[in-house]
Amino acid sequence: MAKVTDPAAVRRYVKEVRSEYETRLGELVGIPSVSMDPAHTADIRRCGDAAVELLKAFGARAELFESSGNPVVWGRFGAAPGAPTVTVYNHLDVQPADGPEWKRPPFSMQIEGGRYYGRGTTDDKGPALAALYAARYVTEAGLSINVDFLWELEEEIGSPNFESVLKKHAKQIATDSVVVSDTIWISRQRPAITAGLRGLLGATLRLETGSHDAHSGLTGGAARNPLTELSALIGELCDAKTGRCKIPGFYADAIPASKRELTSFGRSGFSIAGYKRAHGLKSLRQKTAPAVMRAIWAEPTFEVHGIVGGYSGPGIKTVVPPSAEAKISMRLVPDQTPADVFRKLRARVAKLNPDVVVSSESSLMPYRGVTEGPLADAAADAIRFGFGKAPALVREGGSIGAVVTMRDVLRCPVMFIGLSLPEHGYHAPNENFDWRQASGGIAAFVRYFELLSKQRARPAVTRAARRARPRAAAARR
Amino acid sequence: MAKVTDPAAVRRYVKEVRSEYETRLGELVGIPSVSMDPAHTADIRRCGDAAVELLKAFGARAELFESSGNPVVWGRFGAAPGAPTVTVYNHLDVQPADGPEWKRPPFSMQIEGGRYYGRGTTDDKGPALAALYAARYVTEAGLSINVDFLWELEEEIGSPNFESVLKKHAKQIATDSVVVSDTIWISRQRPAITAGLRGLLGATLRLETGSHDAHSGLTGGAARNPLTELSALIGELCDAKTGRCKIPGFYADAIPASKRELTSFGRSGFSIAGYKRAHGLKSLRQKTAPAVMRAIWAEPTFEVHGIVGGYSGPGIKTVVPPSAEAKISMRLVPDQTPADVFRKLRARVAKLNPDVVVSSESSLMPYRGVTEGPLADAAADAIRFGFGKAPALVREGGSIGAVVTMRDVLRCPVMFIGLSLPEHGYHAPNENFDWRQASGGIAAFVRYFELLSKQRARPAVTRAARRARPRAAAARR
Repeated sequence: MAKVTDPAAVRRYVKEVRSEYETRLGELVGIPSVSMDPAHTADIRRCGDAAVELLKAFGARAELFESSGNPVVWGRFGAAPGAPTVTVYNHLDVQPADGPEWKRPPFSMQIEGGRYYGRGTTDDKGPALAALYAARYVTEAGLSINVDFLWELEEEIGSPNFESVLKKHAKQIATDSVVVSDTIWISRQRPAITAGLRGLLGATLRLETGSHDAHSGLTGGAARNPLTELSALIGELCDAKTGRCKIPGFYADAIPASKRELTSFGRSGFSIAGYKRAHGLKSLRQKTAPAVMRAIWAEPTFEVHGIVGGYSGPGIKTVVPPSAEAKISMRLVPDQTPADVFRKLRARVAKLNPDVVVSSESSLMPYRGVTEGPLADAAADAIRFGFGKAPALVREGGSIGAVVTMRDVLRCPVMFIGLSLPEHGYHAPNENFDWRQASGGIAAFVRYFELLSKQRARPAVTRAARRARPRAAAARR
Repeated sequence: MAKVTDPAAVRRYVKEVRSEYETRLGELVGIPSVSMDPAHTADIRRCGDAAVELLKAFGARAELFESSGNPVVWGRFGAAPGAPTVTVYNHLDVQPADGPEWKRPPFSMQIEGGRYYGRGTTDDKGPALAALYAARYVTEAGLSINVDFLWELEEEIGSPNFESVLKKHAKQIATDSVVVSDTIWISRQRPAITAGLRGLLGATLRLETGSHDAHSGLTGGAARNPLTELSALIGELCDAKTGRCKIPGFYADAIPASKRELTSFGRSGFSIAGYKRAHGLKSLRQKTAPAVMRAIWAEPTFEVHGIVGGYSGPGIKTVVPPSAEAKISMRLVPDQTPADVFRKLRARVAKLNPDVVVSSESSLMPYRGVTEGPLADAAADAIRFGFGKAPALVREGGSIGAVVTMRDVLRCPVMFIGLSLPEHGYHAPNENFDWRQASGGIAAFVRYFELLSKQRARPAVTRAARRARPRAAAARR
């Protein structure tokens, strides 16, 4: 098997497939698979069908698992019976891409000097394809490992149907471990492996005080103004300067990062200047790099994403709107849970402004990752092979609901080999990916699959037994 | 001249012109003269041209006065030299009409049982036409009075060019008094004459913390959130529950309403239930009618009209926006001035959040009306003639910048004969006007013009001398 990851052979393969990789990525990016917008339902379907065809064209068995929402793509590059199985998770749905900041058409991929511009290039179609090219390589090389693919089409809306799909097909898709390729390095100079994810609780605060726009000359002073009241409420739920949430008990279950973890953060290559540049931020709430890393990876948040209501056109229209809605979310850290935080939010709002209706939107559990043992070692080795440097262990400030779901339903460890960089612009205008990360990623996955092929498969019986365990206990592993 | 206002003759005339009035109103409403939206610039021009043609068709001399913004329509129904002159002021521009609450097309007038639905029917095209029909009647009857018309096309954006137009044509349009028909009764059961207007200071609060949308997973906790900061700022500028403005010194120059004035408010027919119904309000900040009337007529406000920035589509998009803008305004009462209040606002914001850029938008002085003397008596008499009931003296919570401008530039009293009702929905969806108010208005204006024809014209010399007075002194009359 030494031949499989012969560096020269892998390099040759990567070089050979570059043009094909770019064509395939362009095809996927060309499908505007925006899961958040019902107008794109047909595109989601089209993307799922295209993904199944792609997997088949690469030599895998593949099918669409239907759900009451979007389907899930599953594929298998099969090996001998008894060979270990690794499942690569990615998602093919994307964020909306609107707004004047887009310098190129978001759904028509542009290649500029090894950089791929378009919505979904880095989040998460580009990394999905990199793993696919690695799977084809090791399969054609005859490696004794089953490489499965799970490509979701609802990740950007919080994976509402993923769990039910996994449960329904649990036997067919049983695996020894999952590797997720949907995370981001801290710096191009230093690969990073994710050791934890924040959770998420999305919610809306809605206040209705009238039935239609009123004239502020006629009613101003007597009419309640829902925009003013929601603004004041937000000011009472969160300290806008520090970002500290003021909901009583909010931090009760938030476990602070350990000193050891904070030290490992420090090796990630994080710099305030680079971070500000990557995200287009003029200033930050914190002044030092350790404080910033703690805030974005290991502490919960309270965020306002939009306040809808009233007049938003040019100039000023002196209306008192009849209703307004604030779109908010809270990122959560272990051991906070969305359900508990939602209860606390609702109780606080009921006290501050009982007319405000609080509704929960997407909710995702925070995740604590695997940092020791053969899988963690294999991931670190693979990264070194693909990118020439040892990775730093960090956390991810974002949330991937599917991670917790896979751990709980498939009863197996979930690892991370991410290929994206801060400057790729996850969720931002002008999202991009690049060949350096794609080619390193293909090589890293080749190495990862090779290392896992040497680890023993868990007997199917054990897997079944694990599945039988009560959920709550499993969630505590 | 007794024949002119013979009640039976006026009744006959009003009955005869009804169908023509409705056709003419439909034509004016059919032109979407939205001054706030640059997309309607051509419609504004079309509306001005149509108004000139309309005045000419009625027998007046008429022309468009150009400005660096929208033109002003001027017309004269001339009488013998030396006859007194009264100028009727209305505006033909309208508020935007968007949103799903509109049950009928806003710019295609629908007549339903004596009610006229469409944007601009009551604010202010319907009242303008009522005065026009009265002018034609008294002119054809040979009454010795010049009736002039000033129809503005920038009232809804704060009359930015009205003053310069008046100054330029001051000699041509010199008049003995102005009557404004752009105010609203308190109740259909009791005519009301306006004895004061609130002023207005519109402003935007803009905060930019980044250059593009950031992902709240990647940056949440460290990135400043302009929506959260603006919300907190609003909470610190205004008590959302009571509506009380918290800017230091805001109330320093606000003269409280006198006991006598509050008593006259009480005779206006105001009821909390009717007021809530008319404006579609579920609840009010105050519990008693006197407190509500004081709040909407005689006290200043702090209002939020819209908060722009971030995500406003379906669901939640977990972005931290790079910037946000709050559209706010403050209604002002005598002796507050927009300039002084703006200074106080800016100073307070600079202290609370120095990164927020405060810009002033429209600004209008508050106005204290004429409540005694022959003009006030004529207006009350005219209302009794048109509607069969004596009017109550009230104030108007809204702002008409043109009023202060006319008083100062034309150096003459500005009176109010308003025809609109609360249920007509000024600035609201499904705006409407009705024949009862239009027909009563025609009769009232006929009577008003007759009474004024008996009052002596001010000699032109006096008018010129008054014009020569320094502005500040005149503003204190």
